[in-house]
Order: sequence, then structure tokens, then C-alpha cells
Amino acid sequence: MSHIIVTYRVISDKHDVSRLARKIAIEQSVETPQSIITASIEARFVGRVEQISALHNRPGVFTVTLSYPQEILSRQYNQLINLCFGNVSMYQNIRLIDITIPDDLLEHFPGPGFGVEGIRRMLGVYGRPLLATALKPRGYTHQQFAHMAYQFALGGGDIIKDDQNLVGSFADFQDRVTLCLRALKKAQDKTGRSCLYFPFISAPFEELEKYFQWVATQQIPGVLLAPLIMGLDTARGWAAKYNLIYMAHPSFSGSYCVPPNNGMSYELLYGTLFRLAGVDIAVYPNAGGRFQFAEKDCQSIAAKLLNPLGKIKAALPCPAGGMQYEDLNKMCRQYGKDAVFLLGGSLLEYAHDPAIATRAFRDKITASFNEKPATPALNQFVSSCEAPLAENTQLLEHLLFDNFQWQGRDSLQYKDCLNIPFQGMRRVELVGRHDEPAKFDLRYFEIEQNGYSSKEKHRHVHVIIIARGQGVALIEDRQYRARKNDIFYIKPNAVHQLKNTLPEPFGFYCIVDRLRDKPVGA
Amino acid sequence: MSHIIVTYRVISDKHDVSRLARKIAIEQSVETPQSIITASIEARFVGRVEQISALHNRPGVFTVTLSYPQEILSRQYNQLINLCFGNVSMYQNIRLIDITIPDDLLEHFPGPGFGVEGIRRMLGVYGRPLLATALKPRGYTHQQFAHMAYQFALGGGDIIKDDQNLVGSFADFQDRVTLCLRALKKAQDKTGRSCLYFPFISAPFEELEKYFQWVATQQIPGVLLAPLIMGLDTARGWAAKYNLIYMAHPSFSGSYCVPPNNGMSYELLYGTLFRLAGVDIAVYPNAGGRFQFAEKDCQSIAAKLLNPLGKIKAALPCPAGGMQYEDLNKMCRQYGKDAVFLLGGSLLEYAHDPAIATRAFRDKITASFNEKPATPALNQFVSSCEAPLAENTQLLEHLLFDNFQWQGRDSLQYKDCLNIPFQGMRRVELVGRHDEPAKFDLRYFEIEQNGYSSKEKHRHVHVIIIARGQGVALIEDRQYRARKNDIFYIKPNAVHQLKNTLPEPFGFYCIVDRLRDKPVGA
Repeated sequence: MSHIIVTYRVISDKHDVSRLARKIAIEQSVETPQSIITASIEARFVGRVEQISALHNRPGVFTVTLSYPQEILSRQYNQLINLCFGNVSMYQNIRLIDITIPDDLLEHFPGPGFGVEGIRRMLGVYGRPLLATALKPRGYTHQQFAHMAYQFALGGGDIIKDDQNLVGSFADFQDRVTLCLRALKKAQDKTGRSCLYFPFISAPFEELEKYFQWVATQQIPGVLLAPLIMGLDTARGWAAKYNLIYMAHPSFSGSYCVPPNNGMSYELLYGTLFRLAGVDIAVYPNAGGRFQFAEKDCQSIAAKLLNPLGKIKAALPCPAGGMQYEDLNKMCRQYGKDAVFLLGGSLLEYAHDPAIATRAFRDKITASFNEKPATPALNQFVSSCEAPLAENTQLLEHLLFDNFQWQGRDSLQYKDCLNIPFQGMRRVELVGRHDEPAKFDLRYFEIEQNGYSSKEKHRHVHVIIIARGQGVALIEDRQYRARKNDIFYIKPNAVHQLKNTLPEPFGFYCIVDRLRDKPVGA
Repeated sequence: MSHIIVTYRVISDKHDVSRLARKIAIEQSVETPQSIITASIEARFVGRVEQISALHNRPGVFTVTLSYPQEILSRQYNQLINLCFGNVSMYQNIRLIDITIPDDLLEHFPGPGFGVEGIRRMLGVYGRPLLATALKPRGYTHQQFAHMAYQFALGGGDIIKDDQNLVGSFADFQDRVTLCLRALKKAQDKTGRSCLYFPFISAPFEELEKYFQWVATQQIPGVLLAPLIMGLDTARGWAAKYNLIYMAHPSFSGSYCVPPNNGMSYELLYGTLFRLAGVDIAVYPNAGGRFQFAEKDCQSIAAKLLNPLGKIKAALPCPAGGMQYEDLNKMCRQYGKDAVFLLGGSLLEYAHDPAIATRAFRDKITASFNEKPATPALNQFVSSCEAPLAENTQLLEHLLFDNFQWQGRDSLQYKDCLNIPFQGMRRVELVGRHDEPAKFDLRYFEIEQNGYSSKEKHRHVHVIIIARGQGVALIEDRQYRARKNDIFYIKPNAVHQLKNTLPEPFGFYCIVDRLRDKPVGA
């Protein structure tokens, strides 16, 4: 059985530190006097003290490492927080430094729904950091915000988020967001490239569903949420339910890491815990801005968001909090290409016209990288269900057919997310996964004898051309025989499934929008 | 326009403190460079520095008081947190000390659904602190927990909560809770008094509804939630949706108050913020236990939970965290009657039989107070919608009738919660609000010309006897003429409403269970 490893830094008398370590182990797992703990409870649930080391340069400071059997988590994110830092958050001079979770347990944490790759595909931007700004200050009219969004997009910005103080009525929210979306569409028609807009959702519990439901109808790609106010797993759950990119604002988070001897390390909070909670873009104050975060802490946060972590997707660090035009070169060097640089006030101050400011900021970022030409991409949704391509595939002018294989294109697993049942399927990504400047993808699917695709629905439409064999297409409550060269159009949200009815393979092409929503089972 | 007053304690150079105060005011409201702030935005949204005072005994430490126009909150609890402590939580050496909210704004915070009075009515216990324990340690079988609950109830305990580490599968949860409820029912049949059980709910976002729905079907009166993990408003929302008493566990909360120069004051977190978020019972570590909370902080928390706060109900302080039998006298002196004393481990250690231990603990508490005899009360739900009685009413053997008034019984406002419309109603509480040992209440209602009761539903049934005039009873989609001496039975969850159809008053008696759920509008 593999264990969860939890490391704390404590201040203690050296004669007392073993006792303290044992105290933490009990407090966090069974919270009961020693006399009540049976041998079996001790073995199954109580933390074990693995190591205690004195910090050689800081007398009275120790690192304490505990291990817990993973059974105690019951695979729950909230219980991870409770286990590692629930009650000891209320002790003086205990700081949580690190948590290591075994790979088999990591599989129960969903992590980011989109991650670095999903967001890049949606924007068609690779090879450089993304440029983001905030709609503020509160008090501007909705028209002013829409105009700001328009100019930012025109200047080449990638992401716009609401300021976290833009909190009002639902009608207010709808009005502002509608105007901003319209402005961004206008900019996109002009530039051919997209800029993603993440409105801030903050509402009483009773109203949240209404907000998210409406957002989902607007083809909005993501939202800004404040997980320390809303609850870490709560914010994840809402974003996941509506298949939204989840940008996390650090409001109300500082008490967990700013005090030096309490709370937890910066990288654990904004890195590990945010990423495990499904954050796609983690906003935090960068060193050198209005806040006093240290450079090494900011770098450690980025590393925790980006470094390999089981099968969990990488998330984007988003340094913010008073960054200036002059900081951009340094930020590019420090963060490399996988980051979002959020500049709000300094962009507003840089030039009277935000389009000019954005262009200047963006050029400065681009100059630090050999950016690939931007792909025009639609500001919509992208499926995050698809199996990854092999490393060595490339854009080809001619895909040579050979008995339902294509040279340069491997057969892939049908889907990467296995929660909707299917059987005997293979998939070939023909066009669209290599940054082709098109708005659709062409795929080929093939179903073995007795096989079937997942029964699912989604907002994007399918156009299907039957290529070989014979099967049936089930669309809503209708059933069609599907023969070679039959075409099917599957409308938004129609539940559908394809099945092979013969011993020979049943194959079809399927054309979909490049940027599309994730299927749900039906 | 009334303002929200926010007080911080900061460490600063004395030449710099005015600048810092202004910086906080901007950071928390519009977060934008000075040059962007127009006069109108300044007036409507930016915080105003009201006062800066040096602490005379602590050089370099200042109290900074800001005021914000209440418009900025948009009546949202989450925005209150964001406004007062969102971004400045990430500054060094700023501690939030107090928040004062004007009375007209307080009306938009629901506060506790049950509060001190609601919980006391449910238990039938007045005049002394309540005794609570925790089911632990994790690793005990469900049968062991059920037996523990049985013995605690037998010994005279008032409230049982789950340990916050009892986290497992849903089936596990159902099994444990079912066994515990059965055990408590058995104990109640034996003792004639009730003991409330609050299971701990911690589950991934996607599963929470399932837990709460099931809990609601089991006639469980309340739940234990961890608001700093779940989100403060999120936890409130779930409890309110299912009309449950909300006991708050402080897991993951300590970083907000334990560091001396950051975070916020103890009483603001566990007192004001918990109470505004609807907490009915606030658990926190008591001074002298395993944690290092100071006595004065614990007393301040209790004061914030209990002192008048607009029309918001008082909540029960629940000191915990290693309290012993020997501490009870002191706790009784310090807290007085309105508290819940939570003793877990020490009760388990005190005697082999928890019934004996509970009896000893309970007797020690009772001895400190002139307790009224306990009223047998059902472990169910109580309506929290009812208008309060006048101070001077008492239990009477004979209620003298006089033209639809009764001596010793005043006419009251029909309902205290005004979110469901009604018109021209008065209410007389005839029997049941004076600790009568009965399982039902008898009320009289009277409707003026053109008046009607609220259109509502609830799980408890109504029995109605028409007493005067004539009206109609609308029950689900049926409409009945209602005349003197007609009787109506309104089944669980049937939407119903009564209306007067004549110029003369329309009056009726209504009999309901003493302990009942709160109506919802329809």
C-alpha cells in the first residue's frame, strides 16, 4: 500500500519535537487520546512519523515528515485538505511545506479540465506566454468595458478577465458580459484571431446555477472564480459541470502563506492544491509588484503547476499584481513560454488607447520568443476528451490512403476519457491537429464487429460520411441503417450512437468544429 | 447612505501609514492606478480613510479605519469577504480587526436559520449549556459508533456530531448514520428526551446533493460542515436548502487568525463571519485545551455570536479541542448558559461506559445552573418562521375566549419571514409555545377582507378547523369552499393557501406538530 507523504516545518524545543510530531500525526487522523487507539486503528489510520531533521542554519526549526495510509483520504480532495492541514492550521508555528501523493491515488484527482494544451489549442497560440488583462475599475459603464475589451483584442491580447470587484445583479452581469462578447466578436471579425473572455462569477449559493447556466448558453470559454471564498472543490465542481476553463483568483488566500511560521508554502497552495483542484490558470502576485511575494516562491509555484504530476494536466501560472511594461523581459526569461502575464492597471496607464498599449506589450513578449504564426481560432469550446497524437506526426499535404490507414497518421485510442462506454473503436486524426488554419477537424472512425461508439451528446454538430461496411446510427429516438456514402447530420444536443451490424469493419468520416464542447454520456 | 466600517491593525513606518491606508482602500475596491480613478468612481466605490491611530503601547503599530459605501457589496456575503480581506490577505503585517455593517444592509444577510432559540426548542432544554460529543476515532465500526451514540443519549447528552475524519463512501455514510439514528431512537424511547445527531458531510461537489437529499429524508435535524474547506457561503447554502441546523467545524481555519500580525481577529472569523454566514453552532478550540487560543479571544467569539446584530438570530458558541471534566465549572462560569460544550476524547476516557461519563459531565453542568425540567422533545425539525411571543406570556390552564381574542394571548404578526407574500393575517399562539409537554401546537389565524395566507408547502401536515366567516382553501390544484366547522387535512408537501371571500373576517384553528420544517413558497 502506498502512502501520502506530508512535510511540515515546525518551531520547537529540540527535546519536544518528537512528541510534537506524534501529536500532529494523531490530531490529523483520529484526534483521540492515546488510550483509545487500538493497534488496528494505529496501523490503518494514524500517521507515522517518518523523519525529523533539524534545519542546520536555524536553531529550533525542524522538518517533520509524516506518512498516512491512503485509505484515510477516501479519494476525496476535501479530505486531503482536512488531513494535511485541518486542525493543525490552528496550532502556532506549524507550516505545511509539501504533500506527495502516490500515482495510483492521483488518478482520483481530476486536475485541470483544459490545461496548458487545451487553452493553447483554443487560442491557436504556441511558443510564447499569453497576454491577459482585467476589466476594471468598478464604476466604468458596461459600454466602457466593452470598448476596453474590443481594443485589447484588437491590439493582440489573448485573455480578458473581469476584475474581482465587478459584482452586481444578475441582469447587470448579463448586460456587461453580452456587450463584451459582442465587442470581442467584432474584434475577431476584424483580426481573424480570438481573445478569450472569462467573466467573474460571485453570487449567493442560491443563484450560482443561474449564472453558470447562462454562461454556458453564451459560448463563453471560461470563468474567473475565487476558490478560497467559494471553496476549492466547490469552484472546481462548478467549472467542471459546465465544461469551463477555470481561472482562479487568489482573493482571501494570502493568510495561508504570507505568515512565515504558519500556514503553508506558496507553491503548495497556488501550485499543488490549485492544480489538484482543477485550476487551469492560477493567478498570484508576482515578485516585484504591489505584493511582497519572493521570486523563488513565484518560480516554485510555476514549477508545481507545470511539472509532471501523474496523468494530471499542466496548468498555467499567471503572475500578476502590479506588473509593468518594463517587467516583461524579465518575466519572459523567468517563466519561459508557459505562462499567462496578467497586466491590468499598467496597461490602462501605458497609452490612452488600450489597443496601442496591448500591441506594445504583446510585441515585447513576442520579441522574446520565436513565436509560430498565430492560428486564427474560434472563441468557443474545445473537446478535452481526445487521445493525444504521437510525438512525431506532422502537417502533411497529402495523406496517402491504404486500406483505411493513412500514411503519417496513426490509429489512436477512440477517446481519452473513459467514462462513457464504447467498444471496438479506433480513431484517426486526419486534419486539424497540427495547427492547420481551418475551423474544423476531420477524423476517421472505425468500429469492429459487435462494436459501438459511446452514446453521447454535445452542443457541437457532427457531419458523418459512411466510408465502409454497414451499421446503424441511433439519433435521439430514431434508428437509421447506415451504408456507404450515407451522410448524417447530428444536430446540437441530439443523443447519438453508431453501431456495427456486420462482421466486417464499419468505418466513417466525421467532421466537427475545431473548437467544440466535450461530450457527455446519455 | 450608510457605510461599512472596516478596521485593520497594521505595522508600518509612521511616515508611511497614511499612504498604506490609502493603498488598502484602493486595493480592496477598484484596484487601479490613481490616474484612472475619476471623481465619480472615487465617491461611489473607493474606501475612505476615516481614522489612523497609533497604538500607544506598541510603537510602529497602528489602527486604520476605512469606510466603504454599501453599494460596493451588492448585498453579497462573498463580496463582503472580498472587499474586507480579498487582496490585502496577501500583504504582510495587515490584520483585519473588525467589520461593522449598517442595519439596513444586515437585512440582506440571512444569518442562522435556527439559532439559539430554535435549537433549544428542538431539544426542550433551557437555562444551561448543552453537552455535545463527537463520534470517533475513525476506525471504529458503525456498530461501535451507534452504541456510543446510544450510551451518550442515555446519559443525558444533547448533541452528537461526527468526527471530521469520518469520511468514506456514500454507502458507508448511510449505513453509519442509519445505525446511529436507530440507536438514538431507542435511547429516546427509554428516556423520553431527545439527542440531536449532526453527521459530517464532506464529499466531492458532484455528490453533495445526494448526501443532503438523503439526510433530509431521514429527519436528521442538522449537519456538521467545514466552511473554510467548502466555502463559507457554500456551506450556508446547502444547510439552508435542506433546512438543516448548521454546525461549523473549524478545520483549515486557523491560518486566518493564529498568526499575530496577519489574517484577522478570532472573533471576526468564528464570531461575525460565521454568524453572518448562517452558522447555528460555531465550533472552535477553547483556551486551555490542545490549542493555544487565548481566553479573551474565546470570550470575544462568544460575544460576537450572541450579542444583538440587527435582526439576525444569535448563534451558539461551541468551545472544544481537548476540554476535560475538570474544566466544566470554569466553562460554565465563563460562557453562562448559551453555549455548547463539546467534549470528545475526555468523555471517552472518563469511564468505560460513555453513559456513566455523560451523566457525570451533564450533572456537573446542571449543578452550575438552575435548570428547568427538560421537556421531552422530538428529534425532528422546527419551524423557524414564527413570530416571537411577547416576553410576559405564560402557560395557562384556561384561555378565555372573547370575540376571537384569548386572554393572555396576544395577536401576533402572521410570520417572521416575509419572503412568501401574504396579506391581512393575524396569528394567535394558543398552546405549545410555553414548553407544554405536547407534541403539537395549536394556533388561531384570522384573515381580513381581501386577505390571504402565504402560498406554501412543507413536510409537516396541517389540520384546520374553520372557526368563523367563509373563505376558500386551495390545496394543490383543488379549490374548496371553507365554512365554519369544515375540517381540512393538508398532506405533506401539498401546496396550499387560504383566502377570505367575504367582507367579514375568516378565522380558523390550525394544529401542527411541535417540531416541524420551515415552509417554502410555491
